[in-house]
Amino acid sequence: MEALVIHAPGDLRVEEVPTPELGPGQLRVRVRCGGICGSDLHYYQHGGFGTVRIKEPMVLGHEVAGMIEAVGAGAGSFAAGDRVAISPSRPCGLCRYCQQGLQNHCLDMRYYGSAMRTPHVQGAFRQEIVVEHWQAHRLADSVSDGEGSMAEPLSVALHAVRRAGPLLGKRVLVTGCGPIGALAIIAARRAGATHIVATDVGSHTLGKALKVGADEVVNVAQEPEGLARFTADKGSFDVLFEASGNQRALVGAFDALRPRGVIVQLGLGGEMTLPINTIVAKEFELRGAFRFHEEFAVAVELLNKGLVDVKPLISATLSYRDSARAFALAADRSQAMKVILNFD
Amino acid sequence: MEALVIHAPGDLRVEEVPTPELGPGQLRVRVRCGGICGSDLHYYQHGGFGTVRIKEPMVLGHEVAGMIEAVGAGAGSFAAGDRVAISPSRPCGLCRYCQQGLQNHCLDMRYYGSAMRTPHVQGAFRQEIVVEHWQAHRLADSVSDGEGSMAEPLSVALHAVRRAGPLLGKRVLVTGCGPIGALAIIAARRAGATHIVATDVGSHTLGKALKVGADEVVNVAQEPEGLARFTADKGSFDVLFEASGNQRALVGAFDALRPRGVIVQLGLGGEMTLPINTIVAKEFELRGAFRFHEEFAVAVELLNKGLVDVKPLISATLSYRDSARAFALAADRSQAMKVILNFD
Amino acid sequence: MEALVIHAPGDLRVEEVPTPELGPGQLRVRVRCGGICGSDLHYYQHGGFGTVRIKEPMVLGHEVAGMIEAVGAGAGSFAAGDRVAISPSRPCGLCRYCQQGLQNHCLDMRYYGSAMRTPHVQGAFRQEIVVEHWQAHRLADSVSDGEGSMAEPLSVALHAVRRAGPLLGKRVLVTGCGPIGALAIIAARRAGATHIVATDVGSHTLGKALKVGADEVVNVAQEPEGLARFTADKGSFDVLFEASGNQRALVGAFDALRPRGVIVQLGLGGEMTLPINTIVAKEFELRGAFRFHEEFAVAVELLNKGLVDVKPLISATLSYRDSARAFALAADRSQAMKVILNFD
Amino acid sequence: MEALVIHAPGDLRVEEVPTPELGPGQLRVRVRCGGICGSDLHYYQHGGFGTVRIKEPMVLGHEVAGMIEAVGAGAGSFAAGDRVAISPSRPCGLCRYCQQGLQNHCLDMRYYGSAMRTPHVQGAFRQEIVVEHWQAHRLADSVSDGEGSMAEPLSVALHAVRRAGPLLGKRVLVTGCGPIGALAIIAARRAGATHIVATDVGSHTLGKALKVGADEVVNVAQEPEGLARFTADKGSFDVLFEASGNQRALVGAFDALRPRGVIVQLGLGGEMTLPINTIVAKEFELRGAFRFHEEFAVAVELLNKGLVDVKPLISATLSYRDSARAFALAADRSQAMKVILNFD
Repeated sequence: MEALVIHAPGDLRVEEVPTPELGPGQLRVRVRCGGICGSDLHYYQHGGFGTVRIKEPMVLGHEVAGMIEAVGAGAGSFAAGDRVAISPSRPCGLCRYCQQGLQNHCLDMRYYGSAMRTPHVQGAFRQEIVVEHWQAHRLADSVSDGEGSMAEPLSVALHAVRRAGPLLGKRVLVTGCGPIGALAIIAARRAGATHIVATDVGSHTLGKALKVGADEVVNVAQEPEGLARFTADKGSFDVLFEASGNQRALVGAFDALRPRGVIVQLGLGGEMTLPINTIVAKEFELRGAFRFHEEFAVAVELLNKGLVDVKPLISATLSYRDSARAFALAADRSQAMKVILNFD
Repeated sequence: MEALVIHAPGDLRVEEVPTPELGPGQLRVRVRCGGICGSDLHYYQHGGFGTVRIKEPMVLGHEVAGMIEAVGAGAGSFAAGDRVAISPSRPCGLCRYCQQGLQNHCLDMRYYGSAMRTPHVQGAFRQEIVVEHWQAHRLADSVSDGEGSMAEPLSVALHAVRRAGPLLGKRVLVTGCGPIGALAIIAARRAGATHIVATDVGSHTLGKALKVGADEVVNVAQEPEGLARFTADKGSFDVLFEASGNQRALVGAFDALRPRGVIVQLGLGGEMTLPINTIVAKEFELRGAFRFHEEFAVAVELLNKGLVDVKPLISATLSYRDSARAFALAADRSQAMKVILNFD
Repeated sequence: MEALVIHAPGDLRVEEVPTPELGPGQLRVRVRCGGICGSDLHYYQHGGFGTVRIKEPMVLGHEVAGMIEAVGAGAGSFAAGDRVAISPSRPCGLCRYCQQGLQNHCLDMRYYGSAMRTPHVQGAFRQEIVVEHWQAHRLADSVSDGEGSMAEPLSVALHAVRRAGPLLGKRVLVTGCGPIGALAIIAARRAGATHIVATDVGSHTLGKALKVGADEVVNVAQEPEGLARFTADKGSFDVLFEASGNQRALVGAFDALRPRGVIVQLGLGGEMTLPINTIVAKEFELRGAFRFHEEFAVAVELLNKGLVDVKPLISATLSYRDSARAFALAADRSQAMKVILNFD
Repeated sequence: MEALVIHAPGDLRVEEVPTPELGPGQLRVRVRCGGICGSDLHYYQHGGFGTVRIKEPMVLGHEVAGMIEAVGAGAGSFAAGDRVAISPSRPCGLCRYCQQGLQNHCLDMRYYGSAMRTPHVQGAFRQEIVVEHWQAHRLADSVSDGEGSMAEPLSVALHAVRRAGPLLGKRVLVTGCGPIGALAIIAARRAGATHIVATDVGSHTLGKALKVGADEVVNVAQEPEGLARFTADKGSFDVLFEASGNQRALVGAFDALRPRGVIVQLGLGGEMTLPINTIVAKEFELRGAFRFHEEFAVAVELLNKGLVDVKPLISATLSYRDSARAFALAADRSQAMKVILNFD
């Protein structure tokens, strides 16, 4: 069975890896589709991000869907042949945060394809994987494998929307329209936002933003003062989803955000220098949003019922054997949003 | 100019009433459509409800839309010819509740067509009305006058949904599928509820519930134990919107509602006898929802953008001169949801 | 080793029971003090409450403190000789509610001295008990065994206060001043309530209410309209803690509770008939409060630091061998608040 | 009548200013005590802060208490001779934020002694002042004028605590123990925080922190890694009140703050460079806290009832004629917390 193993920046290899034994409560899944995430790109391009660095070979990938091949004893109601999206999040269930319902802060998290701990947690860009049954969520026939693999980033966006509090009737700004920003538009609309404005520096991503439901877009590369029309009466947006990881995007939105406005920070971006007096005087709430937990099931249900449409965000599907081309495309925001690897 | 004036139960007359002078900040509006609400029906059938009773002749009606005929000085950006939905809610803006943003609890509220105070506040079932400019909300060309008149009950449903807290990914039960229950289904879906079950005792209303988006319906007249399949593990619904005003509907849902479940009570129903020990042991939250304030603008924006569709709920449109027939139809849940009066 | 075993209403016996083996992670504790709770009284007087009935002999009691006699392997930092309060709440940690941080709704709860499930969960009115180390919370030298045994009911009150949301600067009404109501006064004050009014039908309990910090008390037996002075402008209390389980107390407070007022229902009282229209029109939030989870540690910390004083509520301490007298006294609100059994 | 007028940095003059006519709904108050606030110091030392600069002579001061001399028509229940604390906050009551209950974000705020708008709003360091009756809050006999003048900074601290959400049973860190930090300790304790740790770089302020109730203090000048003992399991504080305006204090607390920890930022400090990835990964909530509204009444009620004690924070009381010495002392954190001017 083959997997995509990162050894060093730029050194991503197809390698033979063994499939573990199927235990009780587990499922063996033939992986069909795997989406390339920003963190996969970081490992590929830079060997990691911040203090998280590849220290040993690691299978990449955590956005996958596939078909069940075999079902262990006591693995719920699953059957061979079921198509499933697989949650890469494996909290311990026992630590103080798990017992508070904050599984995304688990003290012993084993998240697929992550070098946060050593030994690294091996990822899911592989032809076959054995998972706990509670990681698997059945896909409806109407949902493709590629869409199924987007349950994971959609979960991230849903979690961010939940972090924002109720959005029904709210005015929302999204800065940064890569896959996560675009999914935040979808999720915010699904949660009832009435007006959504998106900003980015590229026309391809902004076109996608419009396609998935933004009411207006602003290309801040071409129109740096484009948010000025939203600044009357101390600002008009109720909520900002910051998905660029860019300090200028965050700070540039402050005048357009109303007092008590909520900022959900999704984008990672190292250090940022912020005008703290504005945060104080306008009483902003800047909230980090990190991964997800129960939102994975919600994502799959929304996809299954056709309550969200992520298809416009799938730019291309390539074979995992063609990973160099796939990763290059995934890194090019002028052409691509989500690039999906095919593991058949 | 003619209006529909209630004098006593069953005694609803078309009468000539004067139109007030247009003052600064005001608009004169030609009323085109007016929806018949449950409270209009109560005045018509019983002369009121609870302690609220007609003590003098009163123009009925508070769900209206029309076209601006004249614009007073300083009345914002409105122009003659604009089509608008009119909010019947007129809080004082000065009392302690208004200053807390709780305008629906205003100590000096003057809500159209209400006998809560004496002299009664005259209503909007009239051919012409003078309103404050902040009561008027412009309708898009794509929204009919009839749909515009539904902004008011939609606001009630939106307010109820806001009272429930965030619904993204939640499982929702709606008991009672008259116009308000059906609009609660629409509003809950708009706010991101993933699974919505509706109950009622009539097949007409349940058909409408399915039409506006319920995933499942239960006719509790035919299937009294129909909610039993949702009671595993202490119950599966996160939120209940109780729109029937019927004690059996409310109490009958308790076993299907999970611990910490939220009950938003919309239906008025006099006294109800409740198993308080269940509320305590399951830590339910029973929250009243009453009218609305800023949700009226949200309702119009959702209608204007096509983010909700209330058309399936408009059962018939009749002339205001035919009010006896219109009120009889509005009272018949086997045939009608919302009945609209035409004032042209 | 002796325990207090209830066989039938009025039939409470001192019996010899075995102490289980001490396992890993466990502590063997010599019980010193045990408070008599309302539910103990219900078992004693009526054999139970509602559908919860004694079906087999059961050791009563769940409010206990004592001294550690022996420490199992891996039982944290405890040592023989430590004085501890013992939480009677033993959730499974694994079910869906435990994993959401709602351990008080555990699907497999084993709460001491409860006939909710059969076989019943044996209680803690015994001379010796073996507990999990996470049930034990060390008491400061300044805290007596009797005060330590009040950590449990204090936890219930703290949980109720948390259910109410922030209380800093709020006006609070407490109806029913038995031990739980009185502890709600203490907890509400500790959480920052600025004005606390308490009602009851007895002068002994109201005297205690004043002693533990109520600003005003109303004897509604003597002065049935005593809350009328709080009804201006739709009511003045922000929060009501209903600890009487009496319908008249609950409904009688409605006019004194402001719109959007929060009612935390603590008292159990079978069925209650409520004016649902008032709940709707004033948008009350009626929230059940049931037991506690992490509040037990908070209770012990507050006691240890002297941030609350429960001593005025301890009416008497009697030997467990004198249980008939102790239970009679505990049932007499004209003389007693909390009665504590001494197990030495 | 004399007032303290700032003309330029360091140029603070006692000048004769007229007292306005007493109008309806107003009170004429003889000012007795006025506390020197950090913003007064900024005007005195630097002519302002950030973009807020003195552009014309301005009476300083906004923390005052005094005695009513004359009562205008319809000014509530006040009488000459009443001692009152005066809220310096005068929102318009009409703008969109006032109508949402967010008066501290009023679009037309006239806050005493503030150069935020031009013409500046003249302040309250004057012998006589005419105020709206709703600005005045009666002081109990047990509360001195000096304590009364601390109602304003206490309101700021209470508002910050409310911004933090419920504190009952929470672990709190306060960074920066000037008057606002120390009052945050008092307010957090009043709201039920069980463990409070305070940091500063000076021993005088930390001594005061202990005096007003901190459980532990850390002098981060002497012990830069002093918070390391709170970093186990991803951090142990639930809430951080950042009152230093110092970037190192804020960032230095991140490791000691648990996931989902709330940071209430009170201190103004220009720009700060923050590790945004930590905010994201630990899902912190950074909330600004700015001024107050209804908390002023709460502050006075807490003082009147003796539920808080601010006396330890009053370092000295000097005549307003001795303002140079008073401001120098107020600026010296090695000697002084709050310095109060006497206007008799």
